[in-house]
Amino acid sequence: MDSVRFNNLDKTDSFRKLLSLGEAVDIPSTLTPERIRSCAIPIGGGLSYNYAAKGLSEKVITLLSDLAEEQELAKKYRLLYEGEIMNTGEKRMVLHHLTRGQLGAEVQFEGKNLRTFYLLQQQRIDSFAKQVHNGMIKGSTGKKFDTVVQIGIGGSDLGPRALYLALQGYVETLSGGQHMKALFISNVDPDDPNMVLSTIDFETTLFILVSKSGTTQETLTNMKFVIEKMGAASIPGLDPKKHMIAVTSQTSPLTGSDDYMEAFFIDDFIGGRYSSTSAVGGTVLSLAFGEDVFADLLAGAAEADRLSLSEHPGNNAGMMDALIGVYERNILGLPLTAVLPYSQGLHRFPAHLQQLDMESNGKSVNRFGEPVSYSTGPVVFGEPGTNGQHSFYQLLHQGTDVIPLQFVGFRESQTGFDLPIDGSTSQEKLNANLAAQISAFAMGKEDENRNKYFPGNRPSSIIYGSRLTPAALGALLSHFENKVMFQGFLWNINSFDQEGVQLGKILTKKVLDGDVADPVLQGYIRLLSG
Amino acid sequence: MDSVRFNNLDKTDSFRKLLSLGEAVDIPSTLTPERIRSCAIPIGGGLSYNYAAKGLSEKVITLLSDLAEEQELAKKYRLLYEGEIMNTGEKRMVLHHLTRGQLGAEVQFEGKNLRTFYLLQQQRIDSFAKQVHNGMIKGSTGKKFDTVVQIGIGGSDLGPRALYLALQGYVETLSGGQHMKALFISNVDPDDPNMVLSTIDFETTLFILVSKSGTTQETLTNMKFVIEKMGAASIPGLDPKKHMIAVTSQTSPLTGSDDYMEAFFIDDFIGGRYSSTSAVGGTVLSLAFGEDVFADLLAGAAEADRLSLSEHPGNNAGMMDALIGVYERNILGLPLTAVLPYSQGLHRFPAHLQQLDMESNGKSVNRFGEPVSYSTGPVVFGEPGTNGQHSFYQLLHQGTDVIPLQFVGFRESQTGFDLPIDGSTSQEKLNANLAAQISAFAMGKEDENRNKYFPGNRPSSIIYGSRLTPAALGALLSHFENKVMFQGFLWNINSFDQEGVQLGKILTKKVLDGDVADPVLQGYIRLLSG
Repeated sequence: MDSVRFNNLDKTDSFRKLLSLGEAVDIPSTLTPERIRSCAIPIGGGLSYNYAAKGLSEKVITLLSDLAEEQELAKKYRLLYEGEIMNTGEKRMVLHHLTRGQLGAEVQFEGKNLRTFYLLQQQRIDSFAKQVHNGMIKGSTGKKFDTVVQIGIGGSDLGPRALYLALQGYVETLSGGQHMKALFISNVDPDDPNMVLSTIDFETTLFILVSKSGTTQETLTNMKFVIEKMGAASIPGLDPKKHMIAVTSQTSPLTGSDDYMEAFFIDDFIGGRYSSTSAVGGTVLSLAFGEDVFADLLAGAAEADRLSLSEHPGNNAGMMDALIGVYERNILGLPLTAVLPYSQGLHRFPAHLQQLDMESNGKSVNRFGEPVSYSTGPVVFGEPGTNGQHSFYQLLHQGTDVIPLQFVGFRESQTGFDLPIDGSTSQEKLNANLAAQISAFAMGKEDENRNKYFPGNRPSSIIYGSRLTPAALGALLSHFENKVMFQGFLWNINSFDQEGVQLGKILTKKVLDGDVADPVLQGYIRLLSG
Repeated sequence: MDSVRFNNLDKTDSFRKLLSLGEAVDIPSTLTPERIRSCAIPIGGGLSYNYAAKGLSEKVITLLSDLAEEQELAKKYRLLYEGEIMNTGEKRMVLHHLTRGQLGAEVQFEGKNLRTFYLLQQQRIDSFAKQVHNGMIKGSTGKKFDTVVQIGIGGSDLGPRALYLALQGYVETLSGGQHMKALFISNVDPDDPNMVLSTIDFETTLFILVSKSGTTQETLTNMKFVIEKMGAASIPGLDPKKHMIAVTSQTSPLTGSDDYMEAFFIDDFIGGRYSSTSAVGGTVLSLAFGEDVFADLLAGAAEADRLSLSEHPGNNAGMMDALIGVYERNILGLPLTAVLPYSQGLHRFPAHLQQLDMESNGKSVNRFGEPVSYSTGPVVFGEPGTNGQHSFYQLLHQGTDVIPLQFVGFRESQTGFDLPIDGSTSQEKLNANLAAQISAFAMGKEDENRNKYFPGNRPSSIIYGSRLTPAALGALLSHFENKVMFQGFLWNINSFDQEGVQLGKILTKKVLDGDVADPVLQGYIRLLSG
């Protein structure tokens, strides 16, 4: 690692130059058809990233390119996927890329080739899923499984759930459709398991307990909750052990337990929010959709990982997206990013990105544990268009703050069936809306009535492709993972730990142990217990 | 109206005094059990608002109280509910409060008492719902309706959908449970209707078309889409007209159409995002849950409206919440608010608040159409706890920006069934987490390892009650509506129009009409059509 420097952002020459530029770029003056064509970078999975409506001068783009070089983004990516300890806080490797491909030198741990290990897990999952689908593995009362319920929280919930919802429409169009319906239980609020369990048949339901450590309070509670309710259902012959599998690490207390008929493994090198392409996402998605769909998703992610290898942001969409984000955050001082997918299937994808981005880069110390003196990760939020247009876009267009926008769009719908109504199909209407919004945000509109005036100059980028296929979705996932990683390198922070969740856990334990000498805890507990 | 002044925020003495105070308040030093008790204000519906963890000095609270008086918040609220033209842009009254109660003088329009009109609509809905429930009104093939699908977007979708999801757990515990299952179609993306329609039986489904103007592109398209698919289903005797009702205004093109077997009315004085307590929410909720549940919701909202009448923020939760929000936005310079409900039923409530707040107050001109020189509405986002704790809370605890937090919690769960697991029930665990988070955000934690250091001093408020009942939900809805209204008065903006959505509509129409001389539109249309 001695050949790579880990400098804070504000110690780099190119950042200082960017700061001193003070060059405000007027988007309308630059947004020509030529520029729209020239600002496209392939992502993988048939997707492209286009930043034409970002309003960046050539000078800024050059300095951002210099910054990428100065912060050695490509080299640090290589260190990461080749097994350097890039999660410095927890002293761990960061290997989620290996779950979908071998980008460089092999990575060994305790004599084990980790690519082989992750592949093996996916093969075991494929084989298990096949046996569930063909009825070789049945529920304890002899019925075929038709429903899978994932019990997990955070990265064991948001990513897999977003991907499941994003592919339902696609799989709907395949012959046979879904193999199994998938549901998710995450919250420790008893209303969550109660409501999910009120809709399922225990005899035909397979539960997946997902917890890397095997100690997640919410998840273990919900697992026990489910088992108790299964028992209370008094169904002759029903055996919870035959309805429960686990995704966990080999060192977790769940491994080897008789309570699970099967276990698939991840390890400490797959962070929760980066685990969708590991067994954490693979198990539920393979059971619901079959192994081919999940294999296509992995292939799309692997392609995007490879395209992110380029040293030049002009050929590296994840890197360019990261650089522009840092420019907006640290030079323009904008604290937010809105993610606006024009595809109903992606309706929970922003919730996954919220975790991915905010948990990775919502940090105030650099990778050496020293406070940084600049802003880091932004807040990420979003809802699908056109819904958002009828909701919060008012503020995006005419509010007092400028919010950078990240659009996503596709030429074709996922489900295919469409109708011409009043001269255009629904998909044509959807994309007419999308093009109109990008133009409205960028160009604005003069009006003497200031209430009808649109300032424009509101920057956006768009990720687009022909259809939201499994490969496109995998590439989309990888694009954002790599963007967040590159931003962590730019800010010189560790994007792979989450110390900010610890204090709440400690205090929760105190409360549950009855140790509430603390007057603040006492005050709020009293308030919440009436 | 001559007795009331409409001044910009920065023209008031109290705001100038607040600005010059420069008094940073350290939350940990003020957060005593006495303060926690003393900072509670009743909301209605059994709920209270508590701002103890907001870190406000007595001096600041006094000045905020002065500001409320100087901006004449209580008087302006009265003008509004008594029918003054408070939507100055569109020259309309603002009467959503009348859908749930009579707060002051009667409001007449064209010889019609509007409270009577709104009540009549709800009575008509009740009667219709009863006939659907008892089978007097059946589908065209003679089957009983068991599913209702609302077709609407924005305020015709987000509010009703959030309320439906928020009460499912409650209704689950009533004898008989839900009368009908409700689903929602909103997006013009064909994947949205395709996926919803793939799960329903046309013969037993009743559709509600919701569009005040009767001209909403997305909604009309989806209605026609549904009718075509019904036709394509080739079910003998199936007649779309017998499966479709409308919620619209009496002046809309839908009124009197033979395509709907019944129509319930709203009018121009009910804004979309304020329409959940009108026929827009009332129809779907009464069909799904029965009229008593919806009547309780209205009663809770009406109680909160009455408690918001007080001139003194110390007795007026909506007003205090509004004032603190403006303090955070305009004195502390914080551009965001996170809404964090510790109740799974509220999982889509933040999406409703996003529209309510951002579409109402995301404005840059005052009510006279003059640009304001201060920040207005913040960005609102959120997900339920404990899920959020495993997602974006990292940034909230340790990110470089401070984000004000709005917690919501309940003593009891909604569904009731719970289990003691490892010494505590799930509900106890949920609330232990909630108390722990408030404490962690406020108090922080010293640590020599800066990676494990929590700065604390991150302000939060909490709304809490015994259970998420219909009345509590109604009060919660009204609390935020009134908060947003008071903030609009403080900023001197019109919270009731949405000119920022117009430009996108105009450009979309251009694209669909083939009028794409504009090179930017052309560029993006080309990109999206391959």
